[in-house]
Amino acid sequence: MERGEIEKILQSVASGELSVSDAILAVKSEPFGDLGYAKPDYHRAVRQGVSEVIYGAGKTAQQIIGISKSLMEHGQKTVLITRLDKEKADEVGKSIPLDYREIGKIGIAGSLPTERKGNIVIATGGTSDLPVAEEAAITAEALGNNVVRLYDVGVSGIHRLLAHTEEIMSAKVIIAIAGMEGALAGVIGGLADCPIIAVPTSVGYGASFGGVTALLSMLNSCASGVSVVNIDNGFGAAYQASMINHIGE
Amino acid sequence: MERGEIEKILQSVASGELSVSDAILAVKSEPFGDLGYAKPDYHRAVRQGVSEVIYGAGKTAQQIIGISKSLMEHGQKTVLITRLDKEKADEVGKSIPLDYREIGKIGIAGSLPTERKGNIVIATGGTSDLPVAEEAAITAEALGNNVVRLYDVGVSGIHRLLAHTEEIMSAKVIIAIAGMEGALAGVIGGLADCPIIAVPTSVGYGASFGGVTALLSMLNSCASGVSVVNIDNGFGAAYQASMINHIGE
Amino acid sequence: MERGEIEKILQSVASGELSVSDAILAVKSEPFGDLGYAKPDYHRAVRQGVSEVIYGAGKTAQQIIGISKSLMEHGQKTVLITRLDKEKADEVGKSIPLDYREIGKIGIAGSLPTERKGNIVIATGGTSDLPVAEEAAITAEALGNNVVRLYDVGVSGIHRLLAHTEEIMSAKVIIAIAGMEGALAGVIGGLADCPIIAVPTSVGYGASFGGVTALLSMLNSCASGVSVVNIDNGFGAAYQASMINHIGE
Amino acid sequence: MERGEIEKILQSVASGELSVSDAILAVKSEPFGDLGYAKPDYHRAVRQGVSEVIYGAGKTAQQIIGISKSLMEHGQKTVLITRLDKEKADEVGKSIPLDYREIGKIGIAGSLPTERKGNIVIATGGTSDLPVAEEAAITAEALGNNVVRLYDVGVSGIHRLLAHTEEIMSAKVIIAIAGMEGALAGVIGGLADCPIIAVPTSVGYGASFGGVTALLSMLNSCASGVSVVNIDNGFGAAYQASMINHIGE
Amino acid sequence: MERGEIEKILQSVASGELSVSDAILAVKSEPFGDLGYAKPDYHRAVRQGVSEVIYGAGKTAQQIIGISKSLMEHGQKTVLITRLDKEKADEVGKSIPLDYREIGKIGIAGSLPTERKGNIVIATGGTSDLPVAEEAAITAEALGNNVVRLYDVGVSGIHRLLAHTEEIMSAKVIIAIAGMEGALAGVIGGLADCPIIAVPTSVGYGASFGGVTALLSMLNSCASGVSVVNIDNGFGAAYQASMINHIGE
Amino acid sequence: MERGEIEKILQSVASGELSVSDAILAVKSEPFGDLGYAKPDYHRAVRQGVSEVIYGAGKTAQQIIGISKSLMEHGQKTVLITRLDKEKADEVGKSIPLDYREIGKIGIAGSLPTERKGNIVIATGGTSDLPVAEEAAITAEALGNNVVRLYDVGVSGIHRLLAHTEEIMSAKVIIAIAGMEGALAGVIGGLADCPIIAVPTSVGYGASFGGVTALLSMLNSCASGVSVVNIDNGFGAAYQASMINHIGE
Amino acid sequence: MERGEIEKILQSVASGELSVSDAILAVKSEPFGDLGYAKPDYHRAVRQGVSEVIYGAGKTAQQIIGISKSLMEHGQKTVLITRLDKEKADEVGKSIPLDYREIGKIGIAGSLPTERKGNIVIATGGTSDLPVAEEAAITAEALGNNVVRLYDVGVSGIHRLLAHTEEIMSAKVIIAIAGMEGALAGVIGGLADCPIIAVPTSVGYGASFGGVTALLSMLNSCASGVSVVNIDNGFGAAYQASMINHIGE
Amino acid sequence: MERGEIEKILQSVASGELSVSDAILAVKSEPFGDLGYAKPDYHRAVRQGVSEVIYGAGKTAQQIIGISKSLMEHGQKTVLITRLDKEKADEVGKSIPLDYREIGKIGIAGSLPTERKGNIVIATGGTSDLPVAEEAAITAEALGNNVVRLYDVGVSGIHRLLAHTEEIMSAKVIIAIAGMEGALAGVIGGLADCPIIAVPTSVGYGASFGGVTALLSMLNSCASGVSVVNIDNGFGAAYQASMINHIGE
Repeated sequence: MERGEIEKILQSVASGELSVSDAILAVKSEPFGDLGYAKPDYHRAVRQGVSEVIYGAGKTAQQIIGISKSLMEHGQKTVLITRLDKEKADEVGKSIPLDYREIGKIGIAGSLPTERKGNIVIATGGTSDLPVAEEAAITAEALGNNVVRLYDVGVSGIHRLLAHTEEIMSAKVIIAIAGMEGALAGVIGGLADCPIIAVPTSVGYGASFGGVTALLSMLNSCASGVSVVNIDNGFGAAYQASMINHIGE
Repeated sequence: MERGEIEKILQSVASGELSVSDAILAVKSEPFGDLGYAKPDYHRAVRQGVSEVIYGAGKTAQQIIGISKSLMEHGQKTVLITRLDKEKADEVGKSIPLDYREIGKIGIAGSLPTERKGNIVIATGGTSDLPVAEEAAITAEALGNNVVRLYDVGVSGIHRLLAHTEEIMSAKVIIAIAGMEGALAGVIGGLADCPIIAVPTSVGYGASFGGVTALLSMLNSCASGVSVVNIDNGFGAAYQASMINHIGE
Repeated sequence: MERGEIEKILQSVASGELSVSDAILAVKSEPFGDLGYAKPDYHRAVRQGVSEVIYGAGKTAQQIIGISKSLMEHGQKTVLITRLDKEKADEVGKSIPLDYREIGKIGIAGSLPTERKGNIVIATGGTSDLPVAEEAAITAEALGNNVVRLYDVGVSGIHRLLAHTEEIMSAKVIIAIAGMEGALAGVIGGLADCPIIAVPTSVGYGASFGGVTALLSMLNSCASGVSVVNIDNGFGAAYQASMINHIGE
Repeated sequence: MERGEIEKILQSVASGELSVSDAILAVKSEPFGDLGYAKPDYHRAVRQGVSEVIYGAGKTAQQIIGISKSLMEHGQKTVLITRLDKEKADEVGKSIPLDYREIGKIGIAGSLPTERKGNIVIATGGTSDLPVAEEAAITAEALGNNVVRLYDVGVSGIHRLLAHTEEIMSAKVIIAIAGMEGALAGVIGGLADCPIIAVPTSVGYGASFGGVTALLSMLNSCASGVSVVNIDNGFGAAYQASMINHIGE
Repeated sequence: MERGEIEKILQSVASGELSVSDAILAVKSEPFGDLGYAKPDYHRAVRQGVSEVIYGAGKTAQQIIGISKSLMEHGQKTVLITRLDKEKADEVGKSIPLDYREIGKIGIAGSLPTERKGNIVIATGGTSDLPVAEEAAITAEALGNNVVRLYDVGVSGIHRLLAHTEEIMSAKVIIAIAGMEGALAGVIGGLADCPIIAVPTSVGYGASFGGVTALLSMLNSCASGVSVVNIDNGFGAAYQASMINHIGE
Repeated sequence: MERGEIEKILQSVASGELSVSDAILAVKSEPFGDLGYAKPDYHRAVRQGVSEVIYGAGKTAQQIIGISKSLMEHGQKTVLITRLDKEKADEVGKSIPLDYREIGKIGIAGSLPTERKGNIVIATGGTSDLPVAEEAAITAEALGNNVVRLYDVGVSGIHRLLAHTEEIMSAKVIIAIAGMEGALAGVIGGLADCPIIAVPTSVGYGASFGGVTALLSMLNSCASGVSVVNIDNGFGAAYQASMINHIGE
Repeated sequence: MERGEIEKILQSVASGELSVSDAILAVKSEPFGDLGYAKPDYHRAVRQGVSEVIYGAGKTAQQIIGISKSLMEHGQKTVLITRLDKEKADEVGKSIPLDYREIGKIGIAGSLPTERKGNIVIATGGTSDLPVAEEAAITAEALGNNVVRLYDVGVSGIHRLLAHTEEIMSAKVIIAIAGMEGALAGVIGGLADCPIIAVPTSVGYGASFGGVTALLSMLNSCASGVSVVNIDNGFGAAYQASMINHIGE
Repeated sequence: MERGEIEKILQSVASGELSVSDAILAVKSEPFGDLGYAKPDYHRAVRQGVSEVIYGAGKTAQQIIGISKSLMEHGQKTVLITRLDKEKADEVGKSIPLDYREIGKIGIAGSLPTERKGNIVIATGGTSDLPVAEEAAITAEALGNNVVRLYDVGVSGIHRLLAHTEEIMSAKVIIAIAGMEGALAGVIGGLADCPIIAVPTSVGYGASFGGVTALLSMLNSCASGVSVVNIDNGFGAAYQASMINHIGE
């Protein structure tokens, strides 16, 4: 709770406009709803500058519809629903208008931002990293960022990556997505002079352990300027990348 | 290698100023030295906008002196030496002027930047996270950033953290450092609207597994906008934080 | 075997009421049945003060029916069946009257206790932790406890949790349920002055490793007064919470 | 922050006794000190009902002395210092009167409680679990509990444990401490009808993995009523046991 | 290759009965068949004293039939097929007479030994360990051993186990089967004076990790005389138990 | 990019045949295509001496067809598609002529090499390792090597392996494939005097952990001359074996 | 407690020889001592047929002396002290006559059995496994067994093992000791027709993980008749081997 | 044992030159010595084409001297002793002439091969990988290979590696040595057309887990033609590289 809000409440009490018990209530009044199964956060746009996002994986279509409606009624313009299966998307789409992007498993309710800024480069090691990459790309676009896609530029054919040195050098922030050995982040980190957010993917077999190898490899990147998010967390990478891209606004 | 450089070389060849074999040499000429045991990178300041840093842990005092001198002879103003033991620091200090900060185990050769900008908040869970925090703080300062230190604000006494909501809300980027359960990053991530770089520390015992629990906990942070670096990697966090803090320059 | 029982048997032998061989039999006579596939414990209510509970996961509907009947014939008033699938519940329900709670996957045979005491607070980090939370809540109610449900109060929006400081401060014992980073237990532990039983859940993806991250995080809680049960073990947490809540009876 | 405190501050503002800016200050005034390297919590005794405890492992003797004095000046009667090496204890003892118990590595500054209540049984699997057991025992005694010590009653000679069935049956709460296979908790859990707090120890070799095997074994205890704390965390177990033992006060 | 065989061949060469090249062939002639996909071992009964056993899991019904027939044509009286699904068993049963035991997933082709000796006790922690227990029991019977089944005698109700002290004391070898915490082996190990073969099972959830916890617990058993086989390996335990039971024949 | 190519381009620039901007284009022109979802490498045959191989697992049939056609249009004679399911193979086969080998899950588009050289021995521990072995065998044959198959020669019946000492002694390179304990590689390594490439397989159960045990065992082989590839990576082993077998060409 | 003992006590009660309260005492009277820090088991020789063994690692010299004397005063003829450092041995040797075997770190107090039987073969993979092998060998000899030592017969030079086929074929039980890849157990298991007890050792580096690789490899042995004890547990293997070797006595 | 030897023995028997019992002896006579603590392999040079190597880590100086002498007396010209500490080297050097290379911890007894062939490139990621690299380099040289050292060419400054494309393209076999993220192997694998043997090193901290991250990363290399040896196993890599380099001799 911000200093300003407390100040206003206290001044109302001082001026007699607000009784003590009402002030307590105001201090305690929650900037979030309570749907029983969830407590949507109406003030996040104010507090954190971006829209509320619904993580769709652990929720029923009905819960998603409920939370979305509740958010939109409280003034949210765009609601992003991540990890949304095709089936649930179909059901959600019957109740609220939904722009569903299947490859990234993201649903968008409401209007997208008309203005986009900066330059987020999203690079992947291989073709199979696409779902994670698209989760990141659509999230980034929905949060008002321009996205440059560099897919299938893995280090085992380093010339494919080097051919894009220019895009890498001119990026404001880069999201490096790779499974298997996860070396992409370190190599890009050595080429670029902007922050790199690395996303390990669960692509691979055997000793890739569902993305753990890529995760560990990325955490041990010898290149400076690389940080890492959870396995397959394209959304999280895009969210932070957007924060960085909008710095100074 | 940048487009501009290739272009210049090719034009020299076209104009007859440069022979073919000299051009090959130029294309291949390495922007780094070769000390036998190491290949210091003289162009990184140009290519990546910051100074070369020497990771002191795996090197002898003589190797560190050699690389430092070689870098400074090529125009580097500040050389940061991380993971530098007191003993090695003493020996290095005999050959080159060294400002040694024991708690963060960092040595600074050369002059620090006189101008600092922005506002990097560095928060720690407990008193024992100090060495990692100071590695981060000194690195950030050496790279030209203002640092706000919030030490011992772990989540088990959440009021200590909440008392600093204002500093957290006004930061441009935050470094959250914690061992044990590593929950600090997630809680700060929910309060702040700027990027959080989380650093797990090897502080703890038993099932803390030398920082692995904190690392995993941070990677699973439910708060958006959090990314993670390697265990105890205060330097890496500060390096990326500095990149973010200097965006728009 | 209790001192009292041995004493009685020995006195009967001393008085000649009981032959030596009968006494041996009595000493050895088992306070449990033997259905071949299971040995239901008829005396646990006496020995441990609560009803026998059937862990439904590894058993067929017929085995569950058999054990339930056997227990009720020996005087058990309430039989709780945990980890009971909808399908098995339907089949069991045909043979014995069953109150089935689908979300917590618990079946209740027999009558619930009419009197409940105390105040067990059950808090969850998110919406997806509900199944585990309900397993805990129903178990607690079936064992004679009042339950206060605080769902979706995860640490990434710490104000949602702080809005309930009063409930937390007045609890007699708290069950903190969370997946992903599992930080809820530590934060509540810092606010409350009663025992906290932490339950990690298998909710999450990637480096959450099916609840292991939450488990480790909870074990490393910096807050005192926190202990932990197995991943998703809502029943176990409620069972111990009930023991604590009934202390002094 | 409690409701009562906010209410009082607001009433002072309403009555004109307190200016708005002073009220803000009061709301924000921290119930903890700030020694630079640490923020000791002066109100914990009020807020959580027990004394502040200093985790000695990651702190210098000077830091420990500083925090201890700061706490005692704020009215703390007993200060417990855990994980305190002999050497540090000697140094601390020069500045503040210290009762040092070497086997449990605990230092006690100030007076111990004169009144103790209840019955906490502390059982260990073997002789080598003693240090952890004594950390638990002394902590429990310092927090005002009677302790019954049952050492070396591991399950590989089950008759040694069964000989103490009476103590186990009459305990109010039991702390079961074991390394290696960690089976002690489950066996006691099947005998007792009170809460069991299990402490895995790092005793063992090979596949005991520094206590991980005992930890996992205890988390998987088939007996109900068992919860677990971190490896070697005798203090944590005693702290929670004390909370349980004092319920109803 | 045994001394006797080489000796006979060499004598035949010395006597001129066998040419050098035939001798080479004889020395190299393999005591196993070659079906392309498998090399059944016809001499194992001779070499190791028991029948060849087919591990059914990784093989098709046709391969199992092929190997079985090939073995029986070479004089094998009983062929045991472990890890045999119901479906495969049905298909195999169409080609060769098969006695299929569904609970232990074992098929028996040929006649069982008419004489059995000794006393192998098979104890399980719970009802869900039955499939592994029956794999062990049927294997042991097929190899000519008497089996005493003690099912559902887990340590969380230690009196159920103690009621069978007599069977345990009189066993020649004991197979202790348990999942979850796996403590059964250690407790039995403390009671018995014969070898214990412990079998961890994959029964459990959460931190039981598919039997790893039970495995580790059993390996760390404080009781002497306990050794361990792979998770769920009822067959392996029975095979070794049978070897031990037949010692001295 | 090779010296020769750069030299030619530079000479063309020097001679005026090529403009500077065209030269830049040529230097940057990628020796790979860009299908959007993939960047097939047309020059690999030139650069690395073998054909491009498509890893089929993470790709749709349409993507596989697209990449295959694109490669063949650029002059590739043989395209190998590994990890290709029967269903996808059927669909691919409708668009391009495909020789599908089901057991090794490999599709071959185009003509196989008519000449094969050398002697690659492929040995497996058991019948269930066949799929991995055939992936290796077909890959090796497609890359122009003769293959000797030694299947089901695991170490638990060492005489089956010793019967093939001659093939092992005369191999130019050996691929040792085994799951479970993975001991095959070490034993063969002690017999042979050529490089051994070990392939752990995911065959097994319990503590085989999907091939991790075999992998670790092989990495710890006491025999010199053994190196290891990823679990189930028959293709990778054959690829390197072929490289070794073709040395000196 | 055995049936016979209970019977005798009850008969004394029936005959009036024993009062009821004395009988209770007798039933409860513990067949073990209580030294405070330890509860030595005086009846184990009776109950389990062998001497009590002291695990020296976690105990002080004084504790070892105390327990040894206490055992010998209760009639124990031989006391084995395992994991006994040279220094402690020297100190123990001052108080009680001690035969110390340094390589196996075993101390023997009292007289060794004059009669030994059977044939326990102890085989090791390499020279560095000697300490574990000698712990096993001396234990076995102290328990009355003949031992055949086959050291340095690892599988990477399989002919060294095969040269001892005769000893292996004629053993009554075999202890197979190996670090690194741990393949020795499986290969011996395929040659022998007696029980194999495998002991993984912590010998090795890198991915041997202090014996874990050998442990896992041995648990996955494809040979039947192999069971496993904890890493470096030479004593445990010898104890069980002795039990097996003495069967039928 | 080779066919030729058996044939010769059999012919001697046929011709009467050899008695049957002598032939048995000859067949069984071991091509290795028996020093009690070790069985040196005198025939390996014959059987495998290279010298016997002594792994120094687990052996005393006296054992190393004993084995070395025994080998040299049996005609070995060069004996390589790996993992040899300075201290042991000094002691060994007193008994046998020893050329000790400290950085790679290798001792060479006897004369080095005068002729070397081929071209083994040894590349390292950083300066701290030197000890492993030198173990590999000296081993390779001792086995008769030319070595090209490319040290400190890690992927975080990819231009340092690309500057050596020519050496990489012209190598016959490459050893890629790296700790931390271990990406070097994959990047080199994409550039080269010869076999790559990857050696993970234990260099790094935090989530590098003593080389495990590099190991996993290398096993998951997307580049074909890469195989892996144990962590820090420079010797093993060089041994196999030498085998490959000498193919066709």
